[in-house]
Amino acid sequence: MDLALQPDATAQAEDAAPRSVTVLGATGSVGCNTVDILARHPGAFQAEVLTAHRNVDLLAEQAVRLGARRAVIGDDSKYAALKSALASTPVEAAAGAEAISEAGDQPTDIVVAAIVGAAGLPPVLKAVRRGATVAFANKECLVSAGDLMVREVATHGATLLPVDSEHSAIFQVFDFDQPDKVRRIVLTASGGPFRTKPRDELAAVTPAQAVAHPNWDMGAKISVDSATMMNKGLELIEAFHLFPVPEERIEILVHPQSVIHSMVDYVDGSVLAQLGTPDMRTPIAFALAWPKRVETPAARLVLEDIGTLTFEAPDPVRFPALRLAREALRAGNSAPTLLNAANEVAVAWFLERGLGFLKITEVVEQVLERVTVRSLDSLDDVFAADAEARRVAEEIASKSVG
Amino acid sequence: MDLALQPDATAQAEDAAPRSVTVLGATGSVGCNTVDILARHPGAFQAEVLTAHRNVDLLAEQAVRLGARRAVIGDDSKYAALKSALASTPVEAAAGAEAISEAGDQPTDIVVAAIVGAAGLPPVLKAVRRGATVAFANKECLVSAGDLMVREVATHGATLLPVDSEHSAIFQVFDFDQPDKVRRIVLTASGGPFRTKPRDELAAVTPAQAVAHPNWDMGAKISVDSATMMNKGLELIEAFHLFPVPEERIEILVHPQSVIHSMVDYVDGSVLAQLGTPDMRTPIAFALAWPKRVETPAARLVLEDIGTLTFEAPDPVRFPALRLAREALRAGNSAPTLLNAANEVAVAWFLERGLGFLKITEVVEQVLERVTVRSLDSLDDVFAADAEARRVAEEIASKSVG
Repeated sequence: MDLALQPDATAQAEDAAPRSVTVLGATGSVGCNTVDILARHPGAFQAEVLTAHRNVDLLAEQAVRLGARRAVIGDDSKYAALKSALASTPVEAAAGAEAISEAGDQPTDIVVAAIVGAAGLPPVLKAVRRGATVAFANKECLVSAGDLMVREVATHGATLLPVDSEHSAIFQVFDFDQPDKVRRIVLTASGGPFRTKPRDELAAVTPAQAVAHPNWDMGAKISVDSATMMNKGLELIEAFHLFPVPEERIEILVHPQSVIHSMVDYVDGSVLAQLGTPDMRTPIAFALAWPKRVETPAARLVLEDIGTLTFEAPDPVRFPALRLAREALRAGNSAPTLLNAANEVAVAWFLERGLGFLKITEVVEQVLERVTVRSLDSLDDVFAADAEARRVAEEIASKSVG
Repeated sequence: MDLALQPDATAQAEDAAPRSVTVLGATGSVGCNTVDILARHPGAFQAEVLTAHRNVDLLAEQAVRLGARRAVIGDDSKYAALKSALASTPVEAAAGAEAISEAGDQPTDIVVAAIVGAAGLPPVLKAVRRGATVAFANKECLVSAGDLMVREVATHGATLLPVDSEHSAIFQVFDFDQPDKVRRIVLTASGGPFRTKPRDELAAVTPAQAVAHPNWDMGAKISVDSATMMNKGLELIEAFHLFPVPEERIEILVHPQSVIHSMVDYVDGSVLAQLGTPDMRTPIAFALAWPKRVETPAARLVLEDIGTLTFEAPDPVRFPALRLAREALRAGNSAPTLLNAANEVAVAWFLERGLGFLKITEVVEQVLERVTVRSLDSLDDVFAADAEARRVAEEIASKSVG
């Protein structure tokens, strides 16, 4: 079993000096929650570099609030606006894709990778290659570029910390000193809005129905992934890369209340779990402070008020995404890249162009059948596989609609 | 906050040699489960000394099966029988209270303290005074003699590991490196067989009703403690001594399915829990192998089959034992000794001599009011407090029945 990914807590400074932090994608949802935690603990953290794609006003405000050294806007055309917003402050301004990528190179103690999509990969890879500790909320990191990233992490002695609530839960109760004593990882899933809907009704569900997620407030794309359970398939792939456990020992358990965020089952019969209310600040704070903990304002879990937690096995017939993700994981190399790219295209067609709900996973399955799986030796390989899958997915989706 | 009890994992040998083990009370329920685990892992453990009160046949069989060096029977009159049972084996035989007490002094890596009642205290104290690692399943250890034991553990650098499933659960997810980051400990309770019974019906419940525990197969005394919830009160006292958390931060949560064995709530919003099926071998194996884990045949937890877990706040009116235990804990010194002794007497009167169910806690409350709380500087102080409480409890119980 490859233990190269075992996190080394000593990599994170234990001294009293604040831990320096880079936030890639500071103005998105995870970014804003990260900034909130950093602002609450000025003695524990010092924001060094913040980046954003286009939201100059919020980026400038965050940089000033946290006393950051540098603010980077991805969109070149916003450089003047950023410069002007920071004119009377000591914060440096920078702009452009190259400056975003270089943000990963800044020598900070921890990099929070919260840029959505493929644009997040170059700075993460830079951070990994300098052996940094990376708290990643970017799915592409371990799904699209999983094989490549895991190899680079091992080569450069970097540390990956998950920000996702499920993986944070597993990380919090996973004993990296004895992974051979783990019987299985149990990844919990809400089951999404169609958990109890019969298959024949699923064909007719609308985007509006699909984006109404029961537990978490999320964007439309992620909500649809929750409805197809592809989100859990993608998390399965991430879990496989994060934890030294074979794929067949990672199980998915439907738990509609999403209170137990995931579990680790040990050979002695102990099942360790992390529970909580749905607040991203908990896993973000955990990643930032690990192996310590810092306070967050997350609502306290009051189980006597919640009353009941339920559990059921996922239905492989109504939710083929779980099988597809497992197949892509077994195929390895670029297969998860194809899965993710095809899914993004199919979801967009569902949301905007009338593709049927059940067709989403059908498009993904056909892409996996038609596109050749290749090894991932560079980001260019990742981008090429991603592009090819998107092209084929567009083709299949357009035929499915037409 | 007193951190003297912080367990030191380095105290347990990490090398490949089997860990040597003393089992005090090998023929009882916890003892037999311990022997089962030892027998399954001959490479990890070597039983050195086994003791029993009267069950010569089983003790001899266990000693031979495990290849123990010495078997000690508490009842002097059984010495010849033990000697004869072990005649053709290399196992040494010994007998008598003094030999039981000396068993704690044998230089083994870990002592499993599974003798029920006050008789278990002398050998445990001997083991603690040689700085041993003690896996204790003996309630008297931290309830009757809590103040004394905790002081001796700190003085001699001993390590206490809980065998009780609730405390093992807490231990497994408690971060002793940062107890200040623990917001609360949540001790779960089944609520017992009368969880939903109105108070006016409780007065009339019979011993037969009280000993029918929903989740665990237990003796009559412990079943009645579960029915009054005094068991949880006693566990509260133990938890206070085991974990560096103030009493007011240890909460009790009713969870009838007893699947979540207890939880620790951290300031970042993470609640860590240990779950499992009801099999004592899991916490026993954890204590024996800690900080490692060894396999047990405990049934696997299948939450999709269990389906539903429920939670509710305990009712302080119907279950006054929780308040009494908290009051005894706050009073400290011999107050928990009095609580435990008075409860044992009252439960015996309930089971055998017609004391009403609601009178059990009334007897305890009156004993706590009438007997003076004293400091515990020796086992003699513990035994004196215990005896005085029993005498007063007998007096009160006889008046309550008569």
